[in-house]
Amino acid sequence: MNILLPKGFLANGIHSGLKKKRKDLSLFYSRTDCKAAALFTTNKVKAAPVVFSEEQLENTDHVRAVIVNSGNANCMTGKRGLLDAKKMVNAAARALNVPAATVLVSSTGVIGKPMRLEPVMEGMPKLVAGLSREGLVNAAEGIMTTDRFHKIVTRYFDIGGKNVSMVGVAKGAGMINPNMATMLCYILTDVDISREALKKALFVSNERSFNAITVDGDMSTNDTLVVLANGEAGNKTVEGKGKDYEIFSRNLGEISLELAKMIVRDGEGAEKFIEVSVKKAKTPQEAKKAADAIANSLLVKCAVHGGDPNWGRIASSVGASGIDFDPETMDITLDGVTFFKNGRFMGPGKRQKKNVFKGEEVKIEVLLHRGKAEAVTYTCDISKKYIAINSYYTT
Amino acid sequence: MNILLPKGFLANGIHSGLKKKRKDLSLFYSRTDCKAAALFTTNKVKAAPVVFSEEQLENTDHVRAVIVNSGNANCMTGKRGLLDAKKMVNAAARALNVPAATVLVSSTGVIGKPMRLEPVMEGMPKLVAGLSREGLVNAAEGIMTTDRFHKIVTRYFDIGGKNVSMVGVAKGAGMINPNMATMLCYILTDVDISREALKKALFVSNERSFNAITVDGDMSTNDTLVVLANGEAGNKTVEGKGKDYEIFSRNLGEISLELAKMIVRDGEGAEKFIEVSVKKAKTPQEAKKAADAIANSLLVKCAVHGGDPNWGRIASSVGASGIDFDPETMDITLDGVTFFKNGRFMGPGKRQKKNVFKGEEVKIEVLLHRGKAEAVTYTCDISKKYIAINSYYTT
Repeated sequence: MNILLPKGFLANGIHSGLKKKRKDLSLFYSRTDCKAAALFTTNKVKAAPVVFSEEQLENTDHVRAVIVNSGNANCMTGKRGLLDAKKMVNAAARALNVPAATVLVSSTGVIGKPMRLEPVMEGMPKLVAGLSREGLVNAAEGIMTTDRFHKIVTRYFDIGGKNVSMVGVAKGAGMINPNMATMLCYILTDVDISREALKKALFVSNERSFNAITVDGDMSTNDTLVVLANGEAGNKTVEGKGKDYEIFSRNLGEISLELAKMIVRDGEGAEKFIEVSVKKAKTPQEAKKAADAIANSLLVKCAVHGGDPNWGRIASSVGASGIDFDPETMDITLDGVTFFKNGRFMGPGKRQKKNVFKGEEVKIEVLLHRGKAEAVTYTCDISKKYIAINSYYTT
Repeated sequence: MNILLPKGFLANGIHSGLKKKRKDLSLFYSRTDCKAAALFTTNKVKAAPVVFSEEQLENTDHVRAVIVNSGNANCMTGKRGLLDAKKMVNAAARALNVPAATVLVSSTGVIGKPMRLEPVMEGMPKLVAGLSREGLVNAAEGIMTTDRFHKIVTRYFDIGGKNVSMVGVAKGAGMINPNMATMLCYILTDVDISREALKKALFVSNERSFNAITVDGDMSTNDTLVVLANGEAGNKTVEGKGKDYEIFSRNLGEISLELAKMIVRDGEGAEKFIEVSVKKAKTPQEAKKAADAIANSLLVKCAVHGGDPNWGRIASSVGASGIDFDPETMDITLDGVTFFKNGRFMGPGKRQKKNVFKGEEVKIEVLLHRGKAEAVTYTCDISKKYIAINSYYTT
């Protein structure tokens, strides 16, 4: 698969030695300055590269590169961790011949172990030498941890009569407990857009994609979402409103949502994809709270896993979500079959129930009949394999 | 095992036919009026027997019996469910020849299916005929669902020179996701105590026992905790303070904590018991929030399950708990081995780490160095068996 990066972007990913065999070091590079917008974890325990990159972005409007390693999260590593993050940035800047202030850094892997910098330093020349406009797959592989597949989405579209492109690459696979599974995502585009418009578009698209697979807004120690726009498409600069902005936003939103869904589908040990919709809520917040509660319920995940339309667990998880509602007026529909409506069990027959929760795509729909707001949360089932994967991670 | 109930109490449990083979109907009875205190689920979706019993307790100070069925939760069953709960109460009252206003009712099992009342009605004479002061084990078995063992704790002690006794019986085994695993608990004592003192003692003991195995205060649709005191020991009535109250409270607290721990040990598929202590927090609320976050983390449970001292996951879960603290000053000690202190990884050697998380009893201790408050939360690991048990519950 040869995916061409947007104009002016190069990427690469190599095996440096942080991990035993698989690729563990990636680089995203633009030959010209990029506008950048980013969102980082809200966890109180922030990994060193997150702290460092946040500071970098406060001081510059021009980003040229992101260096990313897997195999070590560089988190809970104190002052040494911050210094290591800085050393990675400096090494990449030197090898690329760009100012260190224009380089961001991310890490993912085990928490609490000091970084081994030698592999990174020794691998840097090879990493830079191999940069290419076709290097996205390698880069996507270099940021993977427990991911079963790499996650790339590309879009080609027009803005102001110019052909533009946007690619997104992500890693993440632990969506059963999303508050601790690191998600890294880099979206690169050659669109010319103002920093303010970019920030605004990112915030909105994130709410409906990556935040729709997160519970409580909790995040891992290393979560990072970066969008870089280098403007090489030559379009008239997109500002924060109007048709061009709408087109840009829509594409950014669609790429984000597709990547978010890929992360859910790659949930550790997951076999089924679950879409939870809560409709007719009083407020969007209320809808999201209920949807997250259902999506985060282990018992619901188990029921889906077993193909068991146990709608009572769904009712109970909404009841425990903290929202105010009347259970008697709640409708519960699973894969198109309504189980509870108008305060009573609808008693669907065996034939009707036969296919509920049996496919790889499962839909849970709850109507609260309190207003017009709605929210969707995506999640996956939980299998024995999840336990196996996560019981022996560091040993 | 012959456990003698406190003076004046009788109990029994039988197989009525709600379940295929196992006991499914239990009765607790006192030959004289009992003072009663109770706590019910805070879930917005409340099962019919919970709604009905709460109303009963608002109108009476005298309880004579509790009728309990397993096999059906009588929840999300609308008006018919409330009527069914009432019918169960009426049938028990009639068979016992006591006022219906003095009988409470509980149910546990599948949500959303109407009760089949025939087995209950037909079994009632046999249930009442078999009542005995040695019937506690039968009653304990009749309230079980996925429990692997029945849970009974007894205490004999003196109050004001009189021998008194107290027994507690509980069911519950789904502590991986406590907000949806029904817990039923009945504590019976022959102590003479005022209703106010009983309520106060119950509230305090619950906070340090059953609430210490619950996250967010969320509960299942059917959770019920009832204490009955019939005063047959003949002691001077215990009021809400003084030595007698202290003795009563201590025993109630110890019984509650033992039962709560038994529920955790019986966690579906659980192999290890985990005690999470958070110390030196600013407030008890802060300590509890952090302890609950650790205890509720699937990744921590998996790490314990695999005997993997992955302390980074513990740090991350505290970071995501929403409390305000400085990760650099946090100490993390697992089974007595300190992994993180004074802002850095302590690098315990292989020999030191050898036994961490390897036993059946596991201790996680986090010091926040922000104050003097502390909290303990009990939980269990998660195994593949949990998934198996919960994937095919209703089918």
